[in-house]
Amino acid sequence: MTAMKWWGWGLDGVAFTHEDKPELRGFIREKIGLDIGQATAAPLGFDELAIPDAHLPDGLRAALAGAVGSEHLSVDPLDRVVHARGKSIRDLIRQRRGDLPRVPDAVVRPADEAQVTAVLQAALEADAVVIPFGGGTSISGSLEPEATETRPVLSVDMGRLDQVLEIDAASRLARVQAGVFGPHLEEQLNAQGYTFGHFPDSFTHSTLGGWIATRSSGMQSDRYGDIADMTRGLRVVTPSGTLVVRPVPSTSTGPSVREMILGSEGRLGLITEATVHVRPLPQRREILGYLFPTFDAGLAAMREIAASEASVSVSRVSDAPETQFSFATRKASTRMDKVQSKALTTFLQRAKGFDLGSMCLSFLGYEGSDGHVTEQRRIVGRIVGRHGGICIGTSPGQLYDQKKFDTPYIRDFLLDRGAAADVSETAAPWSQLEAVHRNTSAAANAAFAQLGVTGYLMCHLSHSYHAGACLYFTFAFVPSPGGDMLEEYDVVKQAIQQAFVDNGATLSHHHAVGTEHSQWLEEDISAPGVRLLEALFDGTDPGANLNPGKLVGGAGRAATEPAR
Amino acid sequence: MTAMKWWGWGLDGVAFTHEDKPELRGFIREKIGLDIGQATAAPLGFDELAIPDAHLPDGLRAALAGAVGSEHLSVDPLDRVVHARGKSIRDLIRQRRGDLPRVPDAVVRPADEAQVTAVLQAALEADAVVIPFGGGTSISGSLEPEATETRPVLSVDMGRLDQVLEIDAASRLARVQAGVFGPHLEEQLNAQGYTFGHFPDSFTHSTLGGWIATRSSGMQSDRYGDIADMTRGLRVVTPSGTLVVRPVPSTSTGPSVREMILGSEGRLGLITEATVHVRPLPQRREILGYLFPTFDAGLAAMREIAASEASVSVSRVSDAPETQFSFATRKASTRMDKVQSKALTTFLQRAKGFDLGSMCLSFLGYEGSDGHVTEQRRIVGRIVGRHGGICIGTSPGQLYDQKKFDTPYIRDFLLDRGAAADVSETAAPWSQLEAVHRNTSAAANAAFAQLGVTGYLMCHLSHSYHAGACLYFTFAFVPSPGGDMLEEYDVVKQAIQQAFVDNGATLSHHHAVGTEHSQWLEEDISAPGVRLLEALFDGTDPGANLNPGKLVGGAGRAATEPAR
Repeated sequence: MTAMKWWGWGLDGVAFTHEDKPELRGFIREKIGLDIGQATAAPLGFDELAIPDAHLPDGLRAALAGAVGSEHLSVDPLDRVVHARGKSIRDLIRQRRGDLPRVPDAVVRPADEAQVTAVLQAALEADAVVIPFGGGTSISGSLEPEATETRPVLSVDMGRLDQVLEIDAASRLARVQAGVFGPHLEEQLNAQGYTFGHFPDSFTHSTLGGWIATRSSGMQSDRYGDIADMTRGLRVVTPSGTLVVRPVPSTSTGPSVREMILGSEGRLGLITEATVHVRPLPQRREILGYLFPTFDAGLAAMREIAASEASVSVSRVSDAPETQFSFATRKASTRMDKVQSKALTTFLQRAKGFDLGSMCLSFLGYEGSDGHVTEQRRIVGRIVGRHGGICIGTSPGQLYDQKKFDTPYIRDFLLDRGAAADVSETAAPWSQLEAVHRNTSAAANAAFAQLGVTGYLMCHLSHSYHAGACLYFTFAFVPSPGGDMLEEYDVVKQAIQQAFVDNGATLSHHHAVGTEHSQWLEEDISAPGVRLLEALFDGTDPGANLNPGKLVGGAGRAATEPAR
Repeated sequence: MTAMKWWGWGLDGVAFTHEDKPELRGFIREKIGLDIGQATAAPLGFDELAIPDAHLPDGLRAALAGAVGSEHLSVDPLDRVVHARGKSIRDLIRQRRGDLPRVPDAVVRPADEAQVTAVLQAALEADAVVIPFGGGTSISGSLEPEATETRPVLSVDMGRLDQVLEIDAASRLARVQAGVFGPHLEEQLNAQGYTFGHFPDSFTHSTLGGWIATRSSGMQSDRYGDIADMTRGLRVVTPSGTLVVRPVPSTSTGPSVREMILGSEGRLGLITEATVHVRPLPQRREILGYLFPTFDAGLAAMREIAASEASVSVSRVSDAPETQFSFATRKASTRMDKVQSKALTTFLQRAKGFDLGSMCLSFLGYEGSDGHVTEQRRIVGRIVGRHGGICIGTSPGQLYDQKKFDTPYIRDFLLDRGAAADVSETAAPWSQLEAVHRNTSAAANAAFAQLGVTGYLMCHLSHSYHAGACLYFTFAFVPSPGGDMLEEYDVVKQAIQQAFVDNGATLSHHHAVGTEHSQWLEEDISAPGVRLLEALFDGTDPGANLNPGKLVGGAGRAATEPAR
């Protein structure tokens, strides 16, 4: 129940700063022509917002208060604005502008599955819309009511369902309530010697139910699996009763109901509980830094590691632009750091023949017993060497590990200075990754050129599989003079997403569809695939009360976009 | 296009024999009171069968002939009878009896996806029923027309789509036509240095499309994954066009369309092609035999191996009854074998304190480089030792490996002698396996007692996962004097399946639902889960032309069962 800023990422008082990163100001000035010295733009004050009145029919209000207790039914304006959207760059820009055509009429906070059921029944009886809300970190528009929605809209905040109910030690399974936030989940499991091992960038502010509803993936999913692999049992409150998926390891019961709930974004019901894989806390855990001469060499090494007999917990390699950004965010260093760094640079150039402009930073993680970690490092080390890479030790990895959840704060920092930054990620077979990287970069740069702006695009491979990997792009630019940030953002985002689907990659590896990606869904899963989703949603929610307009059947972004 | 016997498993001329297994006759006499010396029952002759006439309207016949060429449109009675059913014990009993209330009106053999599309279009225009047919090995009733079906029924045999189209070496993916049989698939892949690694018991006679449509699992799935894990891309001819699932390693595009086709048993369309994981042929491959003092010790060892840092390709442990059956099927042995066996027996009893009546046979497999195999054997060996087990070398594993595809022939051998034998398998969390084993055994024995027959039930753990495993039961009995074999079979099968779902296990781990298991579907996946499947099928196939009655919405077995 720790709600984030209504206009940005994270809690009040926590922010990104450049002041302890001496190289960053110059880097950003050079790359996108922005001086980050001072904030130049600010969100409206909360009291300046024009917030639509809450329209909650008396009967519905009474039924909801009866279901959860009146203290857990909120029509407070701040609560409603916080629950109006997720945290996409589109959401942040519009929240800061006070562009609030439709916010939920109430925020409801049930305490258990029985209350969730009562809330859904009350909503269906009143023909209200129900939008489940976990941590509110969606960056795909999954949480926003449709602008044209005339029925009452309820945001059902699942945060009170936050307990680890049971650990089945023999099966390495935990039964967990869906509203639990990442840190609280790990805390409860760690106390009994276990970890879930799911660490998406949003970890601090997102929930188990949200991860399941969006098909999340974490930085250690090479070892622990994507959320789809880790989720075995489910309980979901649906219009036709409580759906129960048994926590069996594998089953042959037809089209997978488990895999229908995964990624369902609230369209099939409200997830109240999941039975998930857990593992004992590892004896040893290491993330090592490596450098490769080029991104293609790094990709080839990751591919070979995935095909090898080694098991890694993290596989990550940045392209040259992202590597340069990483180095530019280093903190003020000691004299010794500088000497070492200079020695390393000299070594790379002279002994290894690296071109520092194309060099790529990589992290590979290892977990397990002492002997296991040592053995995996040995196998991986040989592969890295074959691709011209070198190991640079544990310090870069430790730094990455400590700071990985801070990245989303940078968007607010840049918005405060008039610049836009966002991410788009995808997955493709190994054989396509170079083309996806090259053609997506070209598409983004063409979009920047079309807008007449200086933009920056960077990328890393973030998860490896048997047959392919995830590529994660980040981009930033300062809008053209007089240009509308949201419109120009759309030009770049469209170019990137279109490049994904045109190059055999998927519209998103782990950020879901929502409204933000729905226009590419048919190109990705084909028209008959969309028809299957429609059959599922229309057949089980004929009144379209469950988060309508997400994934399919919505007006998409068009309804809330300024005309061109 | 190697069609099996119309009344049994496998090709004409291939059969199980007891003559090279000196202990088997005595064993079976002791366990179920049957003398297997002579065949006492035989199927009807083909010319004794009353086969319903083919009703194929002229327009449909012309359209199908136009689609595939008249030589690939068959109304031949043998062809139609072979395609009438799968190979469940219910199917075999009824085929042998000539109980053929409804067989397909035609067998259609398209050569490519365009022809499959034309066949489906012709069928939909004529309001005909389409039942896709791979190798015809379903043991869950997935292939049989509903007895009450009045529309024309087409069995669409996919066997001409049998090519490996492309291998993407970098991604370790192969694009393969769905009608390819197991051996032909491996042959094509092996020629290029690859293996698919999917070896279900039905391997010789089943197809890739069939594996996908039923969620198959193979004996090496611990290493290679279940078919659901190995299948990335799909092409499926549906009423709304060709569904295309991209072969991406992971995606966040909502409820998984890929996982809807898996297990769909022809209800969503005809699978024409899949892009699947392949791996280079391993340098070394070993299956070792082990003995454990009890089944519970074996289960505990398998659980610990699954939780360890070792990776095995096969994990299997039989309970005591199955261990005794395995020993009873040994071939006539040399003098040396006998001496060794006696020495082993003495060692087990004296040095290890084994009770030979509760001893359990296990197989564990290893694949990969020399060093990898050696290391996995070492880790596993320590775990086996901790649970009182010992390694008995490679010969039992080699024998198992060579003979594993012969097992299904035993059912015909027993039917020829008036006895029924069948299998039921399930999966459950590790913590539930002992209870599932104990309570299923008790339920089966109660059923045997109720019938007044001497029955035999045996079981093995066949696949291990992070959080649980598959238990695979086999049972046999001689019907009571004057009793109906099918009715008595149902009493036993019902007891076993009901014990599964009552003990938190699933109705089937890898044999699908069809009509045979549909009565337990709601107990397994819950009523709202069934509703999701109905929404999917009804929404995309409103005329119920695609294999109606399978999984949900059918009359189930009731329509073809004799009245009690």
